Amino acid sequence: MFKIRYSIPGASPNVLRASKHVPSGPPKLRFTRYDQNAIETKTITSVAELPEVTPEGPVLWVELDGISDLQLLQNLGERFGLHPLALEDVLNVGQRPKVEPYSDHLFIVAQMILQDEDGAISWEQVSMFLGPGFLITIEEDPSTDTFAPVHERLDGGRGLIRKQRADYLCYALLDTVVDHSFPILESLGDSLESLEEVVLKTPENQQMHQLHECKRLLAMLRRYVWPEREVLNSLLHDESGLIRRDTKVYLRDCYDHTIQIMDLIESYRDVSSSLMEIYLSSVGMRTNEIMRVLTVISSIFIPLTFLAGVWGMNFQAEKDGRVMPWNMPELHHPLGYPMCLVLMAAIAFFQILYFKRKKWM
Amino acid sequence: MFKIRYSIPGASPNVLRASKHVPSGPPKLRFTRYDQNAIETKTITSVAELPEVTPEGPVLWVELDGISDLQLLQNLGERFGLHPLALEDVLNVGQRPKVEPYSDHLFIVAQMILQDEDGAISWEQVSMFLGPGFLITIEEDPSTDTFAPVHERLDGGRGLIRKQRADYLCYALLDTVVDHSFPILESLGDSLESLEEVVLKTPENQQMHQLHECKRLLAMLRRYVWPEREVLNSLLHDESGLIRRDTKVYLRDCYDHTIQIMDLIESYRDVSSSLMEIYLSSVGMRTNEIMRVLTVISSIFIPLTFLAGVWGMNFQAEKDGRVMPWNMPELHHPLGYPMCLVLMAAIAFFQILYFKRKKWM
Amino acid sequence: MFKIRYSIPGASPNVLRASKHVPSGPPKLRFTRYDQNAIETKTITSVAELPEVTPEGPVLWVELDGISDLQLLQNLGERFGLHPLALEDVLNVGQRPKVEPYSDHLFIVAQMILQDEDGAISWEQVSMFLGPGFLITIEEDPSTDTFAPVHERLDGGRGLIRKQRADYLCYALLDTVVDHSFPILESLGDSLESLEEVVLKTPENQQMHQLHECKRLLAMLRRYVWPEREVLNSLLHDESGLIRRDTKVYLRDCYDHTIQIMDLIESYRDVSSSLMEIYLSSVGMRTNEIMRVLTVISSIFIPLTFLAGVWGMNFQAEKDGRVMPWNMPELHHPLGYPMCLVLMAAIAFFQILYFKRKKWM
Amino acid sequence: MFKIRYSIPGASPNVLRASKHVPSGPPKLRFTRYDQNAIETKTITSVAELPEVTPEGPVLWVELDGISDLQLLQNLGERFGLHPLALEDVLNVGQRPKVEPYSDHLFIVAQMILQDEDGAISWEQVSMFLGPGFLITIEEDPSTDTFAPVHERLDGGRGLIRKQRADYLCYALLDTVVDHSFPILESLGDSLESLEEVVLKTPENQQMHQLHECKRLLAMLRRYVWPEREVLNSLLHDESGLIRRDTKVYLRDCYDHTIQIMDLIESYRDVSSSLMEIYLSSVGMRTNEIMRVLTVISSIFIPLTFLAGVWGMNFQAEKDGRVMPWNMPELHHPLGYPMCLVLMAAIAFFQILYFKRKKWM
Amino acid sequence: MFKIRYSIPGASPNVLRASKHVPSGPPKLRFTRYDQNAIETKTITSVAELPEVTPEGPVLWVELDGISDLQLLQNLGERFGLHPLALEDVLNVGQRPKVEPYSDHLFIVAQMILQDEDGAISWEQVSMFLGPGFLITIEEDPSTDTFAPVHERLDGGRGLIRKQRADYLCYALLDTVVDHSFPILESLGDSLESLEEVVLKTPENQQMHQLHECKRLLAMLRRYVWPEREVLNSLLHDESGLIRRDTKVYLRDCYDHTIQIMDLIESYRDVSSSLMEIYLSSVGMRTNEIMRVLTVISSIFIPLTFLAGVWGMNFQAEKDGRVMPWNMPELHHPLGYPMCLVLMAAIAFFQILYFKRKKWM
Repeated sequence: MFKIRYSIPGASPNVLRASKHVPSGPPKLRFTRYDQNAIETKTITSVAELPEVTPEGPVLWVELDGISDLQLLQNLGERFGLHPLALEDVLNVGQRPKVEPYSDHLFIVAQMILQDEDGAISWEQVSMFLGPGFLITIEEDPSTDTFAPVHERLDGGRGLIRKQRADYLCYALLDTVVDHSFPILESLGDSLESLEEVVLKTPENQQMHQLHECKRLLAMLRRYVWPEREVLNSLLHDESGLIRRDTKVYLRDCYDHTIQIMDLIESYRDVSSSLMEIYLSSVGMRTNEIMRVLTVISSIFIPLTFLAGVWGMNFQAEKDGRVMPWNMPELHHPLGYPMCLVLMAAIAFFQILYFKRKKWM
Repeated sequence: MFKIRYSIPGASPNVLRASKHVPSGPPKLRFTRYDQNAIETKTITSVAELPEVTPEGPVLWVELDGISDLQLLQNLGERFGLHPLALEDVLNVGQRPKVEPYSDHLFIVAQMILQDEDGAISWEQVSMFLGPGFLITIEEDPSTDTFAPVHERLDGGRGLIRKQRADYLCYALLDTVVDHSFPILESLGDSLESLEEVVLKTPENQQMHQLHECKRLLAMLRRYVWPEREVLNSLLHDESGLIRRDTKVYLRDCYDHTIQIMDLIESYRDVSSSLMEIYLSSVGMRTNEIMRVLTVISSIFIPLTFLAGVWGMNFQAEKDGRVMPWNMPELHHPLGYPMCLVLMAAIAFFQILYFKRKKWM
Repeated sequence: MFKIRYSIPGASPNVLRASKHVPSGPPKLRFTRYDQNAIETKTITSVAELPEVTPEGPVLWVELDGISDLQLLQNLGERFGLHPLALEDVLNVGQRPKVEPYSDHLFIVAQMILQDEDGAISWEQVSMFLGPGFLITIEEDPSTDTFAPVHERLDGGRGLIRKQRADYLCYALLDTVVDHSFPILESLGDSLESLEEVVLKTPENQQMHQLHECKRLLAMLRRYVWPEREVLNSLLHDESGLIRRDTKVYLRDCYDHTIQIMDLIESYRDVSSSLMEIYLSSVGMRTNEIMRVLTVISSIFIPLTFLAGVWGMNFQAEKDGRVMPWNMPELHHPLGYPMCLVLMAAIAFFQILYFKRKKWM
Repeated sequence: MFKIRYSIPGASPNVLRASKHVPSGPPKLRFTRYDQNAIETKTITSVAELPEVTPEGPVLWVELDGISDLQLLQNLGERFGLHPLALEDVLNVGQRPKVEPYSDHLFIVAQMILQDEDGAISWEQVSMFLGPGFLITIEEDPSTDTFAPVHERLDGGRGLIRKQRADYLCYALLDTVVDHSFPILESLGDSLESLEEVVLKTPENQQMHQLHECKRLLAMLRRYVWPEREVLNSLLHDESGLIRRDTKVYLRDCYDHTIQIMDLIESYRDVSSSLMEIYLSSVGMRTNEIMRVLTVISSIFIPLTFLAGVWGMNFQAEKDGRVMPWNMPELHHPLGYPMCLVLMAAIAFFQILYFKRKKWM
Repeated sequence: MFKIRYSIPGASPNVLRASKHVPSGPPKLRFTRYDQNAIETKTITSVAELPEVTPEGPVLWVELDGISDLQLLQNLGERFGLHPLALEDVLNVGQRPKVEPYSDHLFIVAQMILQDEDGAISWEQVSMFLGPGFLITIEEDPSTDTFAPVHERLDGGRGLIRKQRADYLCYALLDTVVDHSFPILESLGDSLESLEEVVLKTPENQQMHQLHECKRLLAMLRRYVWPEREVLNSLLHDESGLIRRDTKVYLRDCYDHTIQIMDLIESYRDVSSSLMEIYLSSVGMRTNEIMRVLTVISSIFIPLTFLAGVWGMNFQAEKDGRVMPWNMPELHHPLGYPMCLVLMAAIAFFQILYFKRKKWM
């Protein structure tokens, strides 16, 4: 249901340990180095192949896709001076999005929602280290390529991105992560809308199930988007100097998106709670209607059946020639049967009148 | 259900893209230039026809109705130095109301509720750029003319409006946007009041549906009025110098209106929740009443019917001349039938007594 | 349900317009001027008859009862320099309680709860303008005289009131307004207590209705008392100099009363929610009990009736002299009937045993 | 239900008025004067008998038990310079716990919970005035002696209490007041625990009632303990100099106790809400089970009874010698009855099968 | 249900008293003294055997397992200058986690969750005193050895722990305490997931019980983890100098873990509330389904049974030779029976049609 990854209680925080359930497949390591004039992207196999970083020179973007190779991660950590606690969080995926300032770099954790073709939802943790002149991104799953649009923008040289520094790149990636929630929410809104039409008319267990699914997805989105909002807020108020003022205007826009997403999530939660209420009340109303039919039919026919039973009794009017005039004389009356039918019809008629007045029919 | 407009995840924020579901029809562009002595309103077709703006000269109000012409918007942006991120928000309608300070102007987003003759509710985004000496307003839908009363006030030269600057105009428009919620809330209050009378007496599925509609409208109002309150609050505490102290007294009044609206929304939410509860309890109470009738009738007649059935059995008192005295001797008793009826009446009587004591009848 | 008074959207805020549903009857205007030694109360017809105000001289209390005369209000506004926005709020009764500081006076709105002899609740808006040496109070309804006890205290010269300035008079009136909630809450508490006793025993639709009324009254009280608390808090922290330090001690006491009232309202809300729950559960429990009786009686007698039906069938043991031994031989057994009765009794006995064990009987 | 004591709306706050429902019996007045070396306790009848107070000399503790003597209270107020508003709060018992700083003393209101031998809960207001060198405590009810343990500690000279000043005495009393909630909560916890076991198995109206009682007690505790926490917090941050730094360490401990109590109250509220839910669901489940039995029995026997009814019909196969072969030939078949029984058994068998599959049996 | 330990109301806070329900068994006292080069662990029997502490010398870790020996605790308190109020909290186990700064040391209370082999949950209070150069830990229960992994790390000399001071040791222990919640939460998540699958299909009382257990465990976890978060936060912002800056980076990580745990707890609470809703709605739906079956079968067969009853009546067509043509002539019609069967079939057919249209079949 929820990813819980943790180190063994009492274990040393300075030793890297493999996390459970890590997506298999070998990790991919590549770097992109660019400035306004030139760009170079290269897939490498060891940390040693990475070029030198200069704070004012070309921006270096190191991408690690997959976290199954502990040694590679350790090397990367040593090369860029990353704190063991941060690397531990990279491994224990499912972290709450957060920003942690270290002496010379920022450690950022974000969670990206992904939907495959079958509509199944999954989450991928994106860990980032933003330092002077470089950005390291570490993704959990090597099989996805979620930052392809950013690579295209870099390659195409369109927009501002090539003129800007690593902090703008960091913004562009965070914006991508955040905006991935919009299409999910859009399709969720559609499902809720179609559910809404059905629930009022024909409440069924199936819808309850779907509503529950929607609520769970909303809970998950909320769980990750809420802290992402805080992440963007702390970046906006960052004082480390790693985020330049120009970039903050863009981060504010991204922050706005998280607020919009939270707003939508809250609205959808309200809608689904309301649908739940409607569902329950519809079920109650339907039971009520069923009961009404049962009651009306039973109440009309049970007394009539009793009467029929009475006149079906075998009390003998005669025995051995002795007449017993008190025993069911009505059965021997010439108009007994018609009068009996009239009586029954009258009883039914008054009952129907009563039920009509009570609006049960 | 909710407007969700967003840019493609990973796309560059500096390129304008058309939003989905934008109301069709060509956009209208016009400007109004006024000071205490003179006023001029003109419909134009290109941005180049706009007059020059001087911070201390006549106030320039540029109105763009409709957002389907990207090029026009782009030109407007270039003419007044508007930020691409702000223009993106103008296009992605359905934004949360907000104020964003840019270097020399304020960007304000507001949401206006509209009700057509059939009572259908819709929302229109009003985007404003307030700069020194000018106000640009961009409305989503070219077919509505929601600021007509303000134009009249300007033309008539009544009130303070002609003596004041662009910030007062901005206030007048925001006030118009906010006050549009009042008549909607008034009619909503009437519906709730009439629902209240019906729900207690005759709960029906129909009312549940209406309640749900009310709640959704309230949720929507809340979603837009709540941040509008924040918008007015930040304008009240604006330090850019674009809002003068005199105008802030008026903005405070408008801020008060949003609080009043929020108050009403909360009260109506309480009322509709309470009505929902009453509805559910009435349904339960009604089921209870129906059950009572069913139970009373069944409990009285089922035992009697059984007795009638017993004496309708065909056990033979004689076979081939052999008398079988144990087989239903009561059928052959001279007073069998009257005694049977008395017994039945007695059973019914005691049951009725029991049910009366239980207050089920 | 709730008072909604608003100006037409887009209208100028500087023009006074009559509010809907204003209590009819001509407005009464009177003033009271007093210091420690002398007091003078006079009913007047025009603003021009009002005496001069000196900040250090005798306190002037101007009372306007009824708001149907726009011209009178306008004159009053001009005489004392009241802001048009404040006068608009005086007219649009049903305002949220608030304090608004203007350059040389404070504008205070309070809502007083009133209960007539039939127990019907209504609200009256009391608007106050507190300036140096004067207090103007404007009440919505000319037919009530809610400040009589304060007039008595002034006339009697008892207590501190004659020795104090306009701010103390303002406190005395606010305290009167606030304390009017106490008797209402006291009688509400009594109703809840008597409801509590009934709901558990005999839940009826009537009680649901009463509970709903209580909840609505609580919601209304809350809606007005909550902001009144804020009003008193801002007066306590007033820095305009219009509220002297000595008076703040008294205002703090009044502030305490609002907290006490809020506390009571919250407690009563809890109680009525709890009563609602009890009501619903009692209804459920009662339905359960009814079902139990129905089930027990039906379950016992339906199988027995079936058996009686079986032996009431007319399968012929003989036809045209031919004996058919398989057709209902039990009917012709000498002990057929007693054995049948014993069987029925046994079935009933075991069912009763079963239901006893299930605690359904 | 809740104590509501208030002055008449509009009355002067400077005149003491007797409160309603004040416990009868004459008030007791006594004082205790102590320092590290000596202690003297004396019951007196008038305020004039009180010894002089010196800020640095022996501590003077004045105790007034009972508030029915207005004159005595007035004298006490004049002797120690107590504010009339504070004395009004002393009389209007049922105040929210609070601290009010006056020029040279602190006014503290606390509420002590008391449980008599029958388990009945009541509240007593303890009002305190803490000044330099003296502490005045005024209790509502003369018949209780709740501070006996503190008197013993003073008399015994054990602990720190004799070495400390009036602020430590004030702490000791507040601590006593707060700690009185613990045993109440302990027994409440026991009741909840025993309720928990019963509710799941045999839900009954009685338990609902008990739960409601628990919730009400919790609401009351919460209503008084929550502000007591604020009282202790303001004493902790007191800047009047009346609370010394050493005493604050002890007050912090007392503050901790209120947090612990609030924690327990919240936990118990959760538990009782949860129990309510379980209760309701158990009732629903039980109704469900009853319905199942009814449905199974009815569904099996009603069709069979119908069949028996069919073959109990009196259609004549012969009339006046004329044979009518279409009228109920099965009754005259030699195996009619056995086949009929087999058919009935088969129907019952398949129904039982169906209900078994549905898990209704 | 909850541990409530408290001192007698009114008792002196400076005298230690044994707490109720303290785990039996003699307490164990041992110390560990280490620096980067050497380590020494020794079990002792009296406080006098403890070595001297120097702020800059080797770190001294004193462990007391079990709190039944008041004298030992008193001695420890005197040796290290611990405040009696802190020692009282050590004894009254079940304290809310907290940090209390004393003049030269910090007093920290934490609560560790423990799960034995049967899955039973218990809590153990860990009290810590952190001073310059020493750490004292006092555990409630002598039978558990929860800090074994930390001892191993110290003995092994791995990681940073031997190079650091007492504050790092304190961090390591707190981290161990906090991380103990993770495996509990993991197994709780598994239970919820398996419950989720069952509840929708076959709601049973048993599941309600399990859900209630889950919710209670979550409430308990929340009750202790929430304040533990505050504990870590105050340690992070500690200004006593006892926590060095290097250690704060580690404490921040531990703080993060508490946030993650709170997050999980909230998510699980949401899930269990949602499951409760589903459970209730499933029960309602099932009752609905049962009612439908009952209603359909009853409604079809009750009228038919009535008809059969009618034709089973014994009205006589002849008496003493006198023909009574109005008495049940249909019984003597040659096609009476087939026509009767056809009529019954038709009634049943139309009822089935009606129920099909209502979707009750």
